[in-house]
Amino acid sequence: MSGTDRDQGPLDLQRLRDDTPGCAMVIHLNNAGAALMPRPVLDTVVAHLQREAEIGGYEANDEALERLAAVYRSLAVLIGAQPDEIALVENATRAFDMGFHALPLHDGDVLLVSMADYGSNYMAALRRMRDLRLELRVVPNDESGQISLPALAAMLCDPHVRAVSLTHVPTNSGLVQPAEDVGRLTKQAGVWFVLDATQSIGQIPVDVGRIGCDLLAATGRKYLRGPRGTGFLYVRRERLDELHPPFVDVRAAEWITPDRYELRPDARRFETWEANIAGLLGLGVAVDYQLALGIERTWMRIRALAARLRRGLAAIRGVTVTDPGEVTCGICTFTVAGVSPEHLKESLAGVQPRINVTISTVSSTLLDMESRGLAAVVRASVHYYNSERELDRFLAVVADLARR
Amino acid sequence: MSGTDRDQGPLDLQRLRDDTPGCAMVIHLNNAGAALMPRPVLDTVVAHLQREAEIGGYEANDEALERLAAVYRSLAVLIGAQPDEIALVENATRAFDMGFHALPLHDGDVLLVSMADYGSNYMAALRRMRDLRLELRVVPNDESGQISLPALAAMLCDPHVRAVSLTHVPTNSGLVQPAEDVGRLTKQAGVWFVLDATQSIGQIPVDVGRIGCDLLAATGRKYLRGPRGTGFLYVRRERLDELHPPFVDVRAAEWITPDRYELRPDARRFETWEANIAGLLGLGVAVDYQLALGIERTWMRIRALAARLRRGLAAIRGVTVTDPGEVTCGICTFTVAGVSPEHLKESLAGVQPRINVTISTVSSTLLDMESRGLAAVVRASVHYYNSERELDRFLAVVADLARR
Repeated sequence: MSGTDRDQGPLDLQRLRDDTPGCAMVIHLNNAGAALMPRPVLDTVVAHLQREAEIGGYEANDEALERLAAVYRSLAVLIGAQPDEIALVENATRAFDMGFHALPLHDGDVLLVSMADYGSNYMAALRRMRDLRLELRVVPNDESGQISLPALAAMLCDPHVRAVSLTHVPTNSGLVQPAEDVGRLTKQAGVWFVLDATQSIGQIPVDVGRIGCDLLAATGRKYLRGPRGTGFLYVRRERLDELHPPFVDVRAAEWITPDRYELRPDARRFETWEANIAGLLGLGVAVDYQLALGIERTWMRIRALAARLRRGLAAIRGVTVTDPGEVTCGICTFTVAGVSPEHLKESLAGVQPRINVTISTVSSTLLDMESRGLAAVVRASVHYYNSERELDRFLAVVADLARR
Repeated sequence: MSGTDRDQGPLDLQRLRDDTPGCAMVIHLNNAGAALMPRPVLDTVVAHLQREAEIGGYEANDEALERLAAVYRSLAVLIGAQPDEIALVENATRAFDMGFHALPLHDGDVLLVSMADYGSNYMAALRRMRDLRLELRVVPNDESGQISLPALAAMLCDPHVRAVSLTHVPTNSGLVQPAEDVGRLTKQAGVWFVLDATQSIGQIPVDVGRIGCDLLAATGRKYLRGPRGTGFLYVRRERLDELHPPFVDVRAAEWITPDRYELRPDARRFETWEANIAGLLGLGVAVDYQLALGIERTWMRIRALAARLRRGLAAIRGVTVTDPGEVTCGICTFTVAGVSPEHLKESLAGVQPRINVTISTVSSTLLDMESRGLAAVVRASVHYYNSERELDRFLAVVADLARR
C-alpha cells in the first residue's frame, strides 16, 4: 500500500482484498472482534520473530529500535497526538486499566459512566471503589440511545464529579457516542475525560485534539488490523504529571535511592520493559497501512457497507436490528425471532465459505443490555475490505435461517 | 524433540543445536535476556499468526482452545502445580505486579525483600507504599552473598511482617537464592511468600510444592526459550480467595449486577481476556520441549557449562567474576579492568560469529550493586545448547580484549 493512495478517489477494493490472505478463505464480519491482518502486517510480525530466533530477542530488538520509535510516531499521527503521549501496551484493557487506575481520585469523588460502557471499564470503577469511597453515576441515554448531553451537562454541575469514562463505540452495538460533545462538556467542567476507543480506532476518525480526552485506550487487533496482543494508551501531555501509574517497573521509572524512584517524563511510564516486540512492530505497519489509505475514505466505505447491511437485515422478516444512536458505524447488531444467537453464529460458520460473526452477551454491557431487554445479540461488523457480494451472501444465509 | 528423551543419558547436543536456527548464526550467551527459540516454538507462533490472518483472530483462537488449555497443564507439570493455579499473562513483570498488588496488606504491615531483588519488584513495594503505610525491610546477605537465613528467621519474629518477596536468581549475577529454605521459614511464620522465578524458570528445577511459595511470577522468553511477550503467574489454590486482583476485566470476573462482579474461582482471575494467543501457544510448546528434555538433565549441563565459563574467566588477567552465593547457575557476570562493559559488549557483538552478552547496571538491582561497589557488570548466560567450543571462543575474545 503506497502513501500516494491517500484520499485519492475510491478505494481499490480488489487490491485491498488481494492484500488480505483471509479474504480468499472466509467472509469476515467479525472485524470488531479482530480484523483480518493485511499481508504487510503478518509479514512484519513473522519476520521479526524469525529474526529473534536467528540472532536473539534482545539483539533483534536493538536492530528494530528505529522502527519501534516509528510506531509511536505513526500512532501519534493517527490520533493527532505527539509521540511522547503514547504508551505501547499489550491490549486495550490494560491500556484502560493503567490510565484509569492512575487517576488521582479521593474519597467522596464521583465518576460518571455511560449506559453502554464496556464491562471491563465499569468493573475497573467497581474495583477502585473497593479502595476508595467513590460514587459511580450512570449518565442516562437520550431518546436516540446515545449518551444524553443535557443530562451529562446537568450531572457535571456537581463539584464532586472528577472524571467521565466513555466507551466511544460499545462492544454490543453500532452506536457512535458523541465524543467531541462529551469532551467539550468535560473541558468546561474541568474534569478528567477517559475515552475507550477500542471499537472506534481505525474505523472512525479519532482525533484527541478535537475530542479533548485526557486519556485514550485502544487496541491493535480490531479495526486497525494489527496483531492480537497489542494496544496503546494516549495520555495528554499537560496532565501526565498528575498521573502516577498503578504499576511501576524498570521501564516506567528509574530506581534512584532505596526509598525513591523517578518516573519517566513521558507516557511510556505506563509501559513495561518487556513486550511483544514483533506484535508492536506489526501494529506500526498496520497504522501506516491505515494512514496510507486515509481514514476519511475508509470510514466512508465502512459506513456505506454498514448501511447496506442494516437495510438488508431490516428487510428480513423476523430480524430486529438493535443498533441505537444518531450515528452508527460498521458494527451491525441484530436478533432473529426464534433463532438463538449461538445457533446463528454456528450456522454461519458452517456455510461455504465460512461466515464469521460473533455474539455479544449481557454481562459485557449489563446496563445497556438490561435496559433494552436484551440477553444476547449477533454482531456482524464490516470493514472496508468486505465486498458487497459478501454482504449479499451473508444476508441470504440469514434470511434462510430466519425462515426455518 | 520426543518425550522419550527424558532423563535418558546425556543430551544430544548436535540435535539440539540443529533444532535452533540461531545456533548457526550467533554465539548466544544472552540466554538470561531472551534465549534462542527452538524451531518448534517459532513454527507454532508463526503458524498461529498465519491462521489468524487466514480465518480471523477469534476464529483461530476457537480452533486452538484445546491447545491453549494444554499450556496450563504443561506449566503445571513444569512447576508441580495444578492447571487452575496458573494464569497466562504478558510478561513476568505483570505477573509479579498482578500478584503482589493483590496481597491483602494493611497500614503497619512490614514487607521483607532480599538485597538482590529486581528493581521492578522493589519499586512495586515502593508503589504500594504510596497508598499504604507499609514498612520495607531488607534482609541482609550472609557471608556467601545469598540471603541470610538466620537474619530472615530473626526478622520473621516480628508479627508485623506479612510477606517476603524474593528474586530466585537476580538479574545481575549467577546467585541462586535458597528458595526452599526461605519457604520453610515463611511457612513457619505464616506469612506470604512471593517468588520471582523469571531468571530461574527453565534452567533450575522449580517446584512450588518443595519451595512453598504462595505466588510465583515467571517469563517465557528466558530459559524456557518461549516467545517474547509471554509470562505466567502461579497462585497457590488455598490462598486464591484472599487475593483480589488489582485490575479486573471480563476474563477475570463476571459483571453480575450494577454494583457487583464475581471473580473467577481460579488463577485466571489474574488474566485479561485479550492476549497474544500465538505467543502463548508458543510458550506451551517451549514448556513441552523442556519437559521432554528433563530439567535435571538440562540443569546439570547448564551448571557444567557455567562452571567452565567461570573458570575460564577467572583465569584471564584483569577479569573479576562477580557471582556471589553458595549455589550458582548459568548466569556468569564479570568486569574487566580498564574495559567498560559497553565496550566489551560491542566488541563481542563485532566479532564473527557475533557473540551476544548483555550488561546489568546499578538501577536494576540498586541495593546489591551499591553494596558491592559495582556500577555495571557484563552478563554472559549459558544455555544447554551452547557448545564448549563457543565458550572457548568467547573466552579467547575476552582475553584478547582484556589484554589491550
